[in-house]
Amino acid sequence: MLADCCFCITDFKDSLNTVYSAIEEADFLAIDGEFSGISDGPNVSALTNGLDTPEERYMKLKKHSMDFLLFQFGLCTFTYDQAESKYVIKTFNFYIFPKPFNRTSPDTKFICQSSSIDFLASQGFDFNKVFRHGIPYLNQEEEVQLREQYEERRSQSNGSGNPSYISPNSNKGPGSIPEEHREYIGRVVEKVESLFTTSEKTKERYIQISKVDDEERKRRERQKQEREQEELNDAVGFSRVIHAISKSGKLVVGHNMLLDVMHTIHQFYCVLPEYFLYCFLRLLDTKLMATTQPFKVILFQVFRLTAEGFPSYDTAQEQLHEAGYDAYITGLCFISMRYNATLTSHVFARLFLMRIIDIPYLNISGPDLQPKRDHVLYVTFPKEWKTSDLYQLFSAFGNIQVSWIDDTSAFVSLSQTDQVQIAINTSRYAESYRIQTYAEYVQGRQQVRESQGHSTQSWDEDGWVKPHYTSPSTVGAGPTGYSYGHRHHLNKKSHSHFPSKERRHKNQKYS
Amino acid sequence: MLADCCFCITDFKDSLNTVYSAIEEADFLAIDGEFSGISDGPNVSALTNGLDTPEERYMKLKKHSMDFLLFQFGLCTFTYDQAESKYVIKTFNFYIFPKPFNRTSPDTKFICQSSSIDFLASQGFDFNKVFRHGIPYLNQEEEVQLREQYEERRSQSNGSGNPSYISPNSNKGPGSIPEEHREYIGRVVEKVESLFTTSEKTKERYIQISKVDDEERKRRERQKQEREQEELNDAVGFSRVIHAISKSGKLVVGHNMLLDVMHTIHQFYCVLPEYFLYCFLRLLDTKLMATTQPFKVILFQVFRLTAEGFPSYDTAQEQLHEAGYDAYITGLCFISMRYNATLTSHVFARLFLMRIIDIPYLNISGPDLQPKRDHVLYVTFPKEWKTSDLYQLFSAFGNIQVSWIDDTSAFVSLSQTDQVQIAINTSRYAESYRIQTYAEYVQGRQQVRESQGHSTQSWDEDGWVKPHYTSPSTVGAGPTGYSYGHRHHLNKKSHSHFPSKERRHKNQKYS
Repeated sequence: MLADCCFCITDFKDSLNTVYSAIEEADFLAIDGEFSGISDGPNVSALTNGLDTPEERYMKLKKHSMDFLLFQFGLCTFTYDQAESKYVIKTFNFYIFPKPFNRTSPDTKFICQSSSIDFLASQGFDFNKVFRHGIPYLNQEEEVQLREQYEERRSQSNGSGNPSYISPNSNKGPGSIPEEHREYIGRVVEKVESLFTTSEKTKERYIQISKVDDEERKRRERQKQEREQEELNDAVGFSRVIHAISKSGKLVVGHNMLLDVMHTIHQFYCVLPEYFLYCFLRLLDTKLMATTQPFKVILFQVFRLTAEGFPSYDTAQEQLHEAGYDAYITGLCFISMRYNATLTSHVFARLFLMRIIDIPYLNISGPDLQPKRDHVLYVTFPKEWKTSDLYQLFSAFGNIQVSWIDDTSAFVSLSQTDQVQIAINTSRYAESYRIQTYAEYVQGRQQVRESQGHSTQSWDEDGWVKPHYTSPSTVGAGPTGYSYGHRHHLNKKSHSHFPSKERRHKNQKYS
Repeated sequence: MLADCCFCITDFKDSLNTVYSAIEEADFLAIDGEFSGISDGPNVSALTNGLDTPEERYMKLKKHSMDFLLFQFGLCTFTYDQAESKYVIKTFNFYIFPKPFNRTSPDTKFICQSSSIDFLASQGFDFNKVFRHGIPYLNQEEEVQLREQYEERRSQSNGSGNPSYISPNSNKGPGSIPEEHREYIGRVVEKVESLFTTSEKTKERYIQISKVDDEERKRRERQKQEREQEELNDAVGFSRVIHAISKSGKLVVGHNMLLDVMHTIHQFYCVLPEYFLYCFLRLLDTKLMATTQPFKVILFQVFRLTAEGFPSYDTAQEQLHEAGYDAYITGLCFISMRYNATLTSHVFARLFLMRIIDIPYLNISGPDLQPKRDHVLYVTFPKEWKTSDLYQLFSAFGNIQVSWIDDTSAFVSLSQTDQVQIAINTSRYAESYRIQTYAEYVQGRQQVRESQGHSTQSWDEDGWVKPHYTSPSTVGAGPTGYSYGHRHHLNKKSHSHFPSKERRHKNQKYS
């Protein structure tokens, strides 16, 4: 049975309770996002240097990937039915579009990348569903702003709890009347009052004016407030689903999910912090699991999983790269892996890092791994140089690995650490290029950081940076033999931690 | 009859000759574009100050509007049939998308503005036609690059006209063989040669190797060149239509067409020059005509116009904001206006400027109008000030008009010029704000410009800047009583003129 359980703005509101229940009863959730692009930087290799630190990678993605739109969100809920010994799976596909809510609401701009759009087009992605019928959203900042707008308008029209009232004979009340207008206003009020004494209806279009008692006025105000609350909910739109996932505290599974998580926070929650040390979601990245387990083999061993009462995907039929389907497959893989291997606490809260040679994941619940990289050289050279020039320069040293930083610098990893000093000595009198050890390079950056108020770090005897503190859940060496480093800006004040709802509202300007 | 004469990538190539003929036989053309957005600046009022100079407006649009995508291009050709005394009208709608041509072709990024997308969505715009089936394009720079890539590849594979040839026994020829590999290569060549002596076919997949004589080799190379030329044409795509319009020299009519023209040049031709003094298109903006003629009345007097052999729009049926329909209506209006009023040469090559108080158009064939603006004040103030603060400050001077420049400055137009000096005198001892005459403001900017090598200008007795030269087609005072100013950077070297094809190719880097 092929799923077409996708929600647009037309059916979103009616489906919301179904979504809420599915989240509430689930054992775990799987998510996936489709974006309008990946990188607005010059190219992907500049975005993903093989020797990035997790923090550097995060900063690059924050800078170069957040102006794209997450325009399809896939959610799949997995609930184990003990009696039937099988999983009940519910799949939801949401199309997302920041349709301006009213004249004062933000007119969002987002970037599209041709290659990404073309790829989705080739997969049959329905752009009309996004742009014509996408579900709107607000981040928490915008939600607060809009709520304040409503409240301000209400308190303005209410004065101090009294209905608005203009008297032509008084200078008091909301909006005092200048002397020169008093006569005119007086005449208007007379005309309005005369309307109550006549039942004549001569016009097709008219303004209905009625005198109401206090009871009736309060009833009408309650009605208006309810209407406004509903409008507000409509504007918050898809963000309500993210709030529900966050509040549920359920495990959220994704595959190579770093960008999905960043976009989700950025779009539906708040401006991304400088680095996320703690996240409001309990996360598990199956891509990270797959790097240490026989993922693909397991995938084809997937048990009979049936969905009850919900349309499900026929795994034989290719629906890859629809967000809901990707979330579905991710969930199946997670179940398979869980059946076939004991999950240790070490796989949680760690997001897979693509194309980093020696750091497999970003740790959102504690300090990141920090390899010493003592076989790595930092090389600067004229901007005409190509990879082949670097290969030639190091031709005496056997196999090398080049990780470009920018036009005039790159990391060069040697196969043997004891060659590092030879390379440095050889380069001493060179004029066109310059070689530093990785430690020297880090120290240079560190000095800049320290002058900006960042803390220092020291090396552990294992070759990892010594942590200044230990996180309870990730203490000591993990199963891979890594130990844990110190995150640079732990001593910085607010922005190294994921900010609480309340604090952000007060600190940040509406953008 | 409703037109659905729109072209996607699937039918574009087959329709191209039809489009070429329509352009060739037409008396005039009408165009219109739909964009993915209008402004990536903070807001439209910042983009369009009522006292912008035409050059300033152009620069703002260049900076804030060119990163959007022109994704639908409407072309309507109008040919007068003398015998039948009626117009033959052909309407074309092209969906445009910069689908990456191959791995090395540019991966274009463009911005979408939610309000624009939402507006088009509400008009039933088909985004799938754009993103799934849009016609690709290259600007001239990219076309040259791609051509060079093909030529380089050809000359590499041909050597000096000879087919590529590797001899295991020689160090000559393309790619000399290192000593240590010679034995291995020798064995491979032996195996390949043995293939010619056996007719055995054991594999399902194989590489076909055949010995060819010089004649056959040349024939195959010609075939390959033709195939490459076709690939190149496909990649140039929609730009070929723009080239045809440009080459035809036909009058191109548009309505409020400044952004259409800028996008057309930017997307299909080249990086926009610093300011376009001369344009490769003969242009007429009906919006400008409409500001001086009873446009709307004329529109409803539109004669019976029928299209022959082409589906046409039923004007009763609303199809507004489909580019082809907008072009069609624009053309009809132009015809009506031409029948109802004698067109002087003064309406050509002038593009309507929206929301500028005293300069109705940008002149692409000569110097722009430059009003003296001696009733205008340049006011700077603290960034907390709002429009109401300015109204209060000038409350003694009767009606004023405020044109915001940025957070801390605005132009204030007084209703009477003789109040200017009073305002200046009054402000002399003010601490929170500062007032200058418009002339002083211009002079201040001028000094900065001159230090950068720009020329000076002088005031005419009519109140317009005196031109340093006169353009043959726009000499003297126009019918509106305007005379013509001097464009600031006439003395600057290359970038004030629209660059020729050849020069741009050599000067500009592939972007």
